[in-house]
Amino acid sequence: DPALKVFSLNSNPSLAQEIAENIGTELGKCTVTSFSDGEIQINIEESVRGCDVYVIQSTCEPVNMHIMELLIMIDALKRASARSINIVMPYYGYARQDRKARSREPITSKLVANLLETAGATRVIMLDLHAPQIQGFFDVPIDHLIGVPILSDYFEEKNFEDVVIVSPDHGGVTRARKMADRLKAPIAIIDKRRPRPNVAEVMNIVGNIEGKTAILIDDIIDTAGTMTLAANALIENGAKEVYACCTHPVLSGPAIERIDNSMIKELVVTNTIPLKDEKMIDKVTVLSVGQLISEAITRVHERKSISILFD
Amino acid sequence: DPALKVFSLNSNPSLAQEIAENIGTELGKCTVTSFSDGEIQINIEESVRGCDVYVIQSTCEPVNMHIMELLIMIDALKRASARSINIVMPYYGYARQDRKARSREPITSKLVANLLETAGATRVIMLDLHAPQIQGFFDVPIDHLIGVPILSDYFEEKNFEDVVIVSPDHGGVTRARKMADRLKAPIAIIDKRRPRPNVAEVMNIVGNIEGKTAILIDDIIDTAGTMTLAANALIENGAKEVYACCTHPVLSGPAIERIDNSMIKELVVTNTIPLKDEKMIDKVTVLSVGQLISEAITRVHERKSISILFD
Ligand SMILES: Nc1ncnc2c1ncn2[C@@H]1O[C@H](COP(=O)(O)O)[C@@H](O)[C@H]1O
Ligand SMILES: Nc1ncnc2c1ncn2[C@@H]1O[C@H](COP(=O)(O)O)[C@@H](O)[C@H]1O
Repeated sequence: DPALKVFSLNSNPSLAQEIAENIGTELGKCTVTSFSDGEIQINIEESVRGCDVYVIQSTCEPVNMHIMELLIMIDALKRASARSINIVMPYYGYARQDRKARSREPITSKLVANLLETAGATRVIMLDLHAPQIQGFFDVPIDHLIGVPILSDYFEEKNFEDVVIVSPDHGGVTRARKMADRLKAPIAIIDKRRPRPNVAEVMNIVGNIEGKTAILIDDIIDTAGTMTLAANALIENGAKEVYACCTHPVLSGPAIERIDNSMIKELVVTNTIPLKDEKMIDKVTVLSVGQLISEAITRVHERKSISILFD
Repeated sequence: DPALKVFSLNSNPSLAQEIAENIGTELGKCTVTSFSDGEIQINIEESVRGCDVYVIQSTCEPVNMHIMELLIMIDALKRASARSINIVMPYYGYARQDRKARSREPITSKLVANLLETAGATRVIMLDLHAPQIQGFFDVPIDHLIGVPILSDYFEEKNFEDVVIVSPDHGGVTRARKMADRLKAPIAIIDKRRPRPNVAEVMNIVGNIEGKTAILIDDIIDTAGTMTLAANALIENGAKEVYACCTHPVLSGPAIERIDNSMIKELVVTNTIPLKDEKMIDKVTVLSVGQLISEAITRVHERKSISILFD
């Protein structure tokens, strides 16, 4: 069988290290630095000829640099005769620009898919895409992993007495349902609506949360506006306590401050995006997707189905 | 005839403004900003349906952001039914990564060409490519303009008595020859070589520079090492005074300090890359390529040959 090699770029080196260790290999030798003028310089320092290469890169902030690093690495691997170039994107940036919501908008998720294929990616492994339709933006095979089992297992160990899984908006109900199935819990939905133009939004709660431990779940927490407003509304409406969780902790702008000042008791995230030091707050627990991704890589390399990873 | 529209992105707004004014139009309305997490957000605020659109963007520092801005803009224009998407790149970033100088290097110039075409560019107008071969990396038409006439005209007005055009290395002799033709001057070449490994380079000068005004010319001045060493070697070897010029003032890292401390009397550059404020030194003169580019756009739009712009 051709050799499997795992390379890390600059977005998520410690996750990449963990993945390589789980697989029982060392990270491929390469340096990814910048020239004096800011152009990316990549040197791959070992042969990849005929190898099945896996490149670990989340396109989190600085997103444009991380995308270009990835594209340039793919180009170098292609020209160095890698047999397959498998991209592992724990976080897929620009996923929210997945449709024309207004006239003359770009569809940057599709653009990024095209760029990856043009550069030479032969497979992409992703985790909790903001919209599963993004899989269809690619013509190469996609393996789509989900973070719900990891998040659910963590909460399962807490043995809450009376728990309800809450979607912070209409778009996330399917995800909440998945977690509720695993925890054998009911669901509720925050039904935000504006009664009349120029009137403040009303946070209506659909479902019974009275006296319960509520777990809010979303795919991405970015500025944390939605999550913190939802948490406060749950407490005001009688929830006993509120936990929040997501796969991708973007946590930009006012996110940390908002979470610190909110009714959220604990925020549980994964390491698809590394937390910056200054983002480390006491309330945050980070779970690793390293085991999940390394199992997926091993199974893909051995041509085994990965659907077992979702059960 | 379909309407011609000129849009500016964030790399070079004042050059874009000048180009629009020369053409007798206003810049197209669009905002190019960032979301809280650093993802680029583009809103095109006027219809481009059926239009011939020209987008002005140098891929100078921050190069990766400027490339992504350009690709996302092209995507938006394509989806908004522009008739043609003509990219004006006064400076083409990553031009020096145009070949595999070592094993397993990327060829990022070619990658960028592929990315632009994948996004939907239908023509690219460029100026003084580091390697003219980059034209062949594209399958869409390229219009390649040159800065030598602009630089030459500036020096012509100085009426130097006895002038020699100097190439700072072997690679730039053709460019020096072009300027020498226009100024009816002889050329010289800095013939840098290392006599033995681990011995300092020797700056040998091929050609007569004794007592003459020397004009060093290059396409790019990046860290200015080559240029300033060349200038000092010319003075040491008897040149009367040394001017330096280039089309693309990248001026990264120690460039400004080196130029300030060198024997260069005046550095003449163009505005393909805007100088950052702190880069403004007394020695630098900036000439505009606005007239050249606006003539090229007008001629392209009117389906006239642009070769007249090189004479
Ligand atoms: N990075 C981003 N940050 C905030 N909003 C975004 C971002 N990217 C896209 N959007 C907007 O978010 C909306 C889609 O989000 P959603 O409805 O959650 O799928 C679209 O209207 C986009 O314009
Ligand atoms: N942005 C950059 N800054 C400095 N050197 C570069 C840059 N991009 C590419 N190079 C290197 O410059 C060399 C090509 O430059 P040249 O010989 O002038 O064409 C190659 O060996 C590249 O690896």
